[in-house]
Amino acid sequence: MATVAFIGLGNMGGPMALNLVKAGHTVKVFDLSQDAMHAVAEQGAIPCPSACGAAAGSEVVITMLPAGKHVKGLLLGEDGLLETVASDTLIIDSSTIDAGSAREVASAAKAKGLDFVDAPVSGGTAGAQAGTLTFICGGSDTAFERAKPILDAMGANIFHAGEAGAGQVAKICNNMLLSVLMAGTCEALQLGMDNGLDPKVLSEIMKVSSGGNWTLDKYNPCPGVMETVPASNGYQGGFMVDLMCKDLGLAMETATQSASSTPMGALATSLYRLHQGQGNGSRDFSSLFEQFTKK
Amino acid sequence: MATVAFIGLGNMGGPMALNLVKAGHTVKVFDLSQDAMHAVAEQGAIPCPSACGAAAGSEVVITMLPAGKHVKGLLLGEDGLLETVASDTLIIDSSTIDAGSAREVASAAKAKGLDFVDAPVSGGTAGAQAGTLTFICGGSDTAFERAKPILDAMGANIFHAGEAGAGQVAKICNNMLLSVLMAGTCEALQLGMDNGLDPKVLSEIMKVSSGGNWTLDKYNPCPGVMETVPASNGYQGGFMVDLMCKDLGLAMETATQSASSTPMGALATSLYRLHQGQGNGSRDFSSLFEQFTKK
Amino acid sequence: MATVAFIGLGNMGGPMALNLVKAGHTVKVFDLSQDAMHAVAEQGAIPCPSACGAAAGSEVVITMLPAGKHVKGLLLGEDGLLETVASDTLIIDSSTIDAGSAREVASAAKAKGLDFVDAPVSGGTAGAQAGTLTFICGGSDTAFERAKPILDAMGANIFHAGEAGAGQVAKICNNMLLSVLMAGTCEALQLGMDNGLDPKVLSEIMKVSSGGNWTLDKYNPCPGVMETVPASNGYQGGFMVDLMCKDLGLAMETATQSASSTPMGALATSLYRLHQGQGNGSRDFSSLFEQFTKK
Amino acid sequence: MATVAFIGLGNMGGPMALNLVKAGHTVKVFDLSQDAMHAVAEQGAIPCPSACGAAAGSEVVITMLPAGKHVKGLLLGEDGLLETVASDTLIIDSSTIDAGSAREVASAAKAKGLDFVDAPVSGGTAGAQAGTLTFICGGSDTAFERAKPILDAMGANIFHAGEAGAGQVAKICNNMLLSVLMAGTCEALQLGMDNGLDPKVLSEIMKVSSGGNWTLDKYNPCPGVMETVPASNGYQGGFMVDLMCKDLGLAMETATQSASSTPMGALATSLYRLHQGQGNGSRDFSSLFEQFTKK
Repeated sequence: MATVAFIGLGNMGGPMALNLVKAGHTVKVFDLSQDAMHAVAEQGAIPCPSACGAAAGSEVVITMLPAGKHVKGLLLGEDGLLETVASDTLIIDSSTIDAGSAREVASAAKAKGLDFVDAPVSGGTAGAQAGTLTFICGGSDTAFERAKPILDAMGANIFHAGEAGAGQVAKICNNMLLSVLMAGTCEALQLGMDNGLDPKVLSEIMKVSSGGNWTLDKYNPCPGVMETVPASNGYQGGFMVDLMCKDLGLAMETATQSASSTPMGALATSLYRLHQGQGNGSRDFSSLFEQFTKK
Repeated sequence: MATVAFIGLGNMGGPMALNLVKAGHTVKVFDLSQDAMHAVAEQGAIPCPSACGAAAGSEVVITMLPAGKHVKGLLLGEDGLLETVASDTLIIDSSTIDAGSAREVASAAKAKGLDFVDAPVSGGTAGAQAGTLTFICGGSDTAFERAKPILDAMGANIFHAGEAGAGQVAKICNNMLLSVLMAGTCEALQLGMDNGLDPKVLSEIMKVSSGGNWTLDKYNPCPGVMETVPASNGYQGGFMVDLMCKDLGLAMETATQSASSTPMGALATSLYRLHQGQGNGSRDFSSLFEQFTKK
Repeated sequence: MATVAFIGLGNMGGPMALNLVKAGHTVKVFDLSQDAMHAVAEQGAIPCPSACGAAAGSEVVITMLPAGKHVKGLLLGEDGLLETVASDTLIIDSSTIDAGSAREVASAAKAKGLDFVDAPVSGGTAGAQAGTLTFICGGSDTAFERAKPILDAMGANIFHAGEAGAGQVAKICNNMLLSVLMAGTCEALQLGMDNGLDPKVLSEIMKVSSGGNWTLDKYNPCPGVMETVPASNGYQGGFMVDLMCKDLGLAMETATQSASSTPMGALATSLYRLHQGQGNGSRDFSSLFEQFTKK
Repeated sequence: MATVAFIGLGNMGGPMALNLVKAGHTVKVFDLSQDAMHAVAEQGAIPCPSACGAAAGSEVVITMLPAGKHVKGLLLGEDGLLETVASDTLIIDSSTIDAGSAREVASAAKAKGLDFVDAPVSGGTAGAQAGTLTFICGGSDTAFERAKPILDAMGANIFHAGEAGAGQVAKICNNMLLSVLMAGTCEALQLGMDNGLDPKVLSEIMKVSSGGNWTLDKYNPCPGVMETVPASNGYQGGFMVDLMCKDLGLAMETATQSASSTPMGALATSLYRLHQGQGNGSRDFSSLFEQFTKK
């Protein structure tokens, strides 16, 4: 069992820290919100007055922050955590941030001789609570091997995507592809319905044919086709349009940085922003289906 | 065992007719090409001097023709087959044609009191020879039940998509979605590679994550990731770009007829036509991957 | 002055026929609607019991019908007008139809030795009434020279785009491009506004820069920028979304027939159909702007 | 006449500085390249050992740098120019940078009480040499009035787009729209040609119809239609694909920052990156036309 500092106790970070506690780790936490710290302290985490204080004496530091600028602000610079932690500390950043920032942080950690893993997650708040998150990691083999037993306490699938930064890249590639699958499935289903097909029957056929994809298997966007998905519950819960838009923004930024052409991803981004701008930001991302339904 | 007329003995129709012969049916064939008729006659089919002659006395008539105009030309009109066949004949059209033509033919058949099934196939010439095609059928329950044992001799999966015309609609919905999966997967893989990822590792991760889809499972477009797919064999064989373009043309036509919005499918269509126009028409459809690779 | 048969007296055809009357031509008219015939007969046109009757003895026959199938139904076949008119008759089809049908009709006319011009119009009902339509013509030089003085009575700009069928092709190329200009201008204006710009100022700058285009000059889609356009009048009047969708459907059909890649036009088509499907079919086509406005 | 510091003497900055010299201003210059400084010093500019040295005693400081990070690096921070210049200095940034960086710099200048204008240019190296650039400016009325007479020495059109940052926003809105016009015009022309039209005739028709836009007026992408454009000169010279891709990258970044939906611009970005990735980065941006030409 390790001593772990956990910085950032939001909707995701809070339950993740608690799963570390449950697994038997000593967990020192910090968040700008006293309430957030209280909530986890009541269940066994140790509140600290600063990120630096939490990191002091910890073998592992995990950060779970909103965006690249927060991660860079915390870790880099003269007062940054990378300057203050012990030289054998393992840093794990589980925030979802742009690949450029991830590589910048990874490179600074490397210059200090620190093991660093970028380990963005998928699985949402439900997965954070249940400890069934997917972690997609970037970092050296050594760093990954050190991180894996820690991440096991919070997740069900731990992937090693490559060198530092690779976790972020793999995650946004996956989520960009997911947005394409969802948008394409929405319009294929609606095209069938506009031509008289039953969406259940069409879904069954495509699922086992060459149109098969994750959204047809697990997350059908047409109300009434699958029982327990957001589409059959007014598109509540699940993975919010706002979050998909955030991830797609990171994907577009990454594509710009590498001058990659991503026509399908860029179109899905535009469709999701259109949908978001029309007031659907806090609904599940499968609600894109409604864009294609004729009124 | 039935007496079956089979009209249209091309790369698909020829081996399909032979599988009916092998199953023990009496198969009367017609094609404009004497060579095509000879080839199947040598293996037990009965050549006829005309489509009408093949249909006479057959309980089932199967058509396998290039486009809607050929199917309408053969079946409709004063001299059309629908006028000449016996009233209890089952008509099965396995051509891939536009939904409008399919509905027109289905409606004419219904007016004559004839059982009619549209039953477009997927699986390519390999599937036609092996008898492992997928049939996606439209028609009444009665017509479908009559057709199923016949189709079983030629295919491995026989779906009932709905009323007459539904087979064509479901097939083009599926293939439009497939084009979206393929294009999206190509660019997601290349985006990852442009940012330092190994396509094998990225494919493994996305395959079991929310980016999972048929192309990652069965048909990875990046050379070297899967061994036995066209991508690892110079994009030879498989499903030609020209055929994908044909199916996407039908999808676009169907979307126009029903005023459906299909942004992802329309973009995939444009990308495939760009690829086709640049001289890739006879290569496998996963060769779209090369569009995204930087030179 | 000529004797002209005018078939099809709808919102466009009616006022066009009357402008021929005003110019001094003898105008024999036919429409399936008695009311439509009465309306123009009151102002000097000669109602006829059939299209064939109107054409008999006329030097010029003009058709103005909804779609390719109507034009083919009237002109082709054993009872078609092409069979019954005198051999020196000039046929002008001003309907907007798909290029394939236009070429089919043109080819049949040529086989009969008849002069034929396809002459689709733009300018809307206002232009039809004012006699300021734009005609985009296809046909031989001879046919075009014969048609020009007739069309002058109804239009302000008479273009000769090429051989028969070229009028239809040029019109849909232009209208597809227009849809791209409009969609692109809408989103560029909104992007500027989302970043604090005044749409009037941004419009003035882009109008005289490399972003300059017809929509900024004549038809600004942002309410309040130009006074007399539909955008400043609740998007009433003008060129309906339904009509733009019809023309874009023809463009997509033409692109499919020639296997042309039109990514921008295909995306504009999808956006217009999305807009149409959300209940905006009878509003002006510049109302697409609202899709991009955040709620 | 004013004393002007000019920082950044590249392909654009060098000739711009010389036009200030020619107009009679005292011009103090700095560039990291000694060669670049020598070249302008020979024609009357005063070389300085540092940016700070050039700015000292100058009433106006003009920066012309590659990207936002360079502008921020020079102007912001403890050693930044904004700290060292006299309080009545006017700062003009003519670099093309992302709107976020522009606003950040503008805001820092405001905090110091400095007049600041962002004034990105269009017109290329030819315009820089001829002194016929277009400047699109953001800043207060006072700042703009101060900047205008200076900019007049280098440009033919000086626009005031709004408050600080507005210049950058307006420029990228315009250039994004330009990319849409170009891509749309390319495919409309090719669609016409694929259907038998002469591109000259089609261009003439669309130019004066509702498809009219800057590319048809000044920059036809089809070889042979206009004599003096890059398309008729092997797509040499003009505005490089690489530069269009840079501007589109900024547009995509800006759209992400404001969560704006720009489907047409995003698609044009993807098409330009596809074209760039296929080895066309240093060719004129109208060479996109070749993507649509069938081989």
